[in-house]
Amino acid sequence: MNYERILPEIIQKNDKKILLLVIDGLGGLPDPKTGKTELETANIPNLDYFAKIGSCGLLTPVLPGITPGSGPGHIALFGYDPIEIQIGRGILECLGIGLEVKKGEIAIRGNFATIDENRIVLDRRAGRIPTEENEKIVNLISENIKEIKGVKIKIKTVKEHRCAIILSGENLSCDVTENDPGKEGLTLKNIDPLSEKGKFTAEVLNEFEERVISLLKNLNSKAKCLLLRGFSTYPDIQTFQERYKLKPCCIATYPMYKGISKLVGMEVVECGEKIEDEIETLKNIYNDYDFFFLHIKKTDSFGEDGNFEGKVKILEEIDRKIEPIKNMKFEAIAITGDHSTPSVLKSHSWHPVPVVVVSPNTLPDKVERFTERDCSKGILGNIYSKNLMYILLACSLKLGKFGA
Amino acid sequence: MNYERILPEIIQKNDKKILLLVIDGLGGLPDPKTGKTELETANIPNLDYFAKIGSCGLLTPVLPGITPGSGPGHIALFGYDPIEIQIGRGILECLGIGLEVKKGEIAIRGNFATIDENRIVLDRRAGRIPTEENEKIVNLISENIKEIKGVKIKIKTVKEHRCAIILSGENLSCDVTENDPGKEGLTLKNIDPLSEKGKFTAEVLNEFEERVISLLKNLNSKAKCLLLRGFSTYPDIQTFQERYKLKPCCIATYPMYKGISKLVGMEVVECGEKIEDEIETLKNIYNDYDFFFLHIKKTDSFGEDGNFEGKVKILEEIDRKIEPIKNMKFEAIAITGDHSTPSVLKSHSWHPVPVVVVSPNTLPDKVERFTERDCSKGILGNIYSKNLMYILLACSLKLGKFGA
Repeated sequence: MNYERILPEIIQKNDKKILLLVIDGLGGLPDPKTGKTELETANIPNLDYFAKIGSCGLLTPVLPGITPGSGPGHIALFGYDPIEIQIGRGILECLGIGLEVKKGEIAIRGNFATIDENRIVLDRRAGRIPTEENEKIVNLISENIKEIKGVKIKIKTVKEHRCAIILSGENLSCDVTENDPGKEGLTLKNIDPLSEKGKFTAEVLNEFEERVISLLKNLNSKAKCLLLRGFSTYPDIQTFQERYKLKPCCIATYPMYKGISKLVGMEVVECGEKIEDEIETLKNIYNDYDFFFLHIKKTDSFGEDGNFEGKVKILEEIDRKIEPIKNMKFEAIAITGDHSTPSVLKSHSWHPVPVVVVSPNTLPDKVERFTERDCSKGILGNIYSKNLMYILLACSLKLGKFGA
Repeated sequence: MNYERILPEIIQKNDKKILLLVIDGLGGLPDPKTGKTELETANIPNLDYFAKIGSCGLLTPVLPGITPGSGPGHIALFGYDPIEIQIGRGILECLGIGLEVKKGEIAIRGNFATIDENRIVLDRRAGRIPTEENEKIVNLISENIKEIKGVKIKIKTVKEHRCAIILSGENLSCDVTENDPGKEGLTLKNIDPLSEKGKFTAEVLNEFEERVISLLKNLNSKAKCLLLRGFSTYPDIQTFQERYKLKPCCIATYPMYKGISKLVGMEVVECGEKIEDEIETLKNIYNDYDFFFLHIKKTDSFGEDGNFEGKVKILEEIDRKIEPIKNMKFEAIAITGDHSTPSVLKSHSWHPVPVVVVSPNTLPDKVERFTERDCSKGILGNIYSKNLMYILLACSLKLGKFGA
């Protein structure tokens, strides 16, 4: 991204504070019965207030038409190019269950699968075994396979047939093939090195797979082997401290968002589970940081469940709970989402997400409501999520002039 | 930028004329007392007329959040990527005082500074000596140091502690370090070559510095040495003739803008100091060129001074003075700024700048006033400044079809 080429020259530290409030899966689509989106249906006077006093617009998370996962959605909001900086799927799987990955380690997604005696894959999800069954099997593996060729192996349950694995040791590399044949009816594959660098890791993983298969052989479970995928290392990513000279923190309730924040150098602050706990935490630590990422999860969950009414209600609850922010002093506030999650689609989507920037140094527009269609008329226009961070830095006077 | 890849294939010469009218620092922010920006406050019937008949929009000079200097601001309006094509600070310093830099020469920014007998820098700006004192010292240096190792040295006062230096000769290179330690209390640095290429230039500059120091030693002035910075050569930039097959000219009153225009191949036309002189000049040379860059400076100066009322008044004056343009025949006119300079910020800013394109070949929108918020609803949307030039070329039918 072009910002990197000029940032070192123009970034300047000051005491001004920035708040990035991310309402996960914020944007939506109309309920066919009413023609109104979740935001258009909800009674959200505080969000509307911010829209009235701020500069509104829409954020395209990655590129038009592209639906992001939580990783790219947040990486972009943090000011990085979500296509250049990709966080490996193994890493995201680990972060999602609060498993920290360190530099030099390899994170892997594991799926328990069913194979026959000829290692033909019969079910790539082992009949979606219950999470409790997964936990028992993971414990069995954990107790029996702690180390192979000096490489420490950590395995944790995610849910159903999914688990996460971390390898720690010397000379590890992601330069290996996956053993998932990708389709049922095909044979479980060997793990092959893709280069000289991957040779040792392939040996470790093939031995690990053999030992897992013999452990599960006589067990009364459909889980008979592990499909190992998404090999990934700690991403090569500049921290907020290096890049923006900020002292950043994260207030979130889900492991995934805490994990992504840590990757970019944020300090994750201890906090309760409710929205009011998050706001209370924000107040308590106000003096300790200059960048606050506050993540609210539940909008996304209701959207994913296809629960339009539930998403409307949680938007109204969020609106009530964030009222104290009106009386806190930030030089720049952005309220937005990492992506849309329309209840009618029951999934993340590519639709641009409403955004409002509130600052004494921004130009308010005539937008009066914080909705998709109202914000589309805002003065920020339709910009990329990866640009938002620089508007926040500019509004808090942390960016000097580029060129003379 | 992607345009370069297709321009040679599609650019075509014709007789149609283009006017690019740049009102420096055009955009603003609201006066907190009235909630209106400078443009919203001003009575500007002619600019509003152009907004009514043209296509309006906003221009982002570099990237969202990035505040440009005059260099990047204009380079972008001329259709180049302001991050790819950066004009060195030494060159800009020279251009700013009307000192021409030729290919092969090295342009340098000099700061007079105070050092003690151990060459510890005590004041990086030599107490901001008066410009008259600077002129005397520069004369002294000029008379005593004309050449070193066959390299001609030219030095000119900028203002206060600042001066500009040009080296002309063979085998010169910018591959040398600066001697500015960057902070007071540290020792004046040696100028070191960054590569074999820079060796000779470093020798010349170190000898120059020694001779300057001994000249200033017993002088009654806080200026005791020169901090040499921003070494730059003539930028590798395609001219308007090569790139667009245009015959371009520049009508401007300040050296900086004349200088940048020359870099891209514009002929700088002699002209008086007032806005009416510039408009009169435009009429007089109408037959001689097909691209006219007309630059009006004073809006930026009032913005930088924080003089909201003054900026409003000068906008009204500009509006009156540009009326004759209504009766001149251009196939495409753009009126815009190189960046915003909100009076409330007293500096350049990152805020997108209003633009209107007037042409028989563009689609007028429903914008009725030439202001930031009105133009944000225009049909051009929020585009990058570097794209404007291609809209002007297209509107004057100078761009053929891309691909069959």
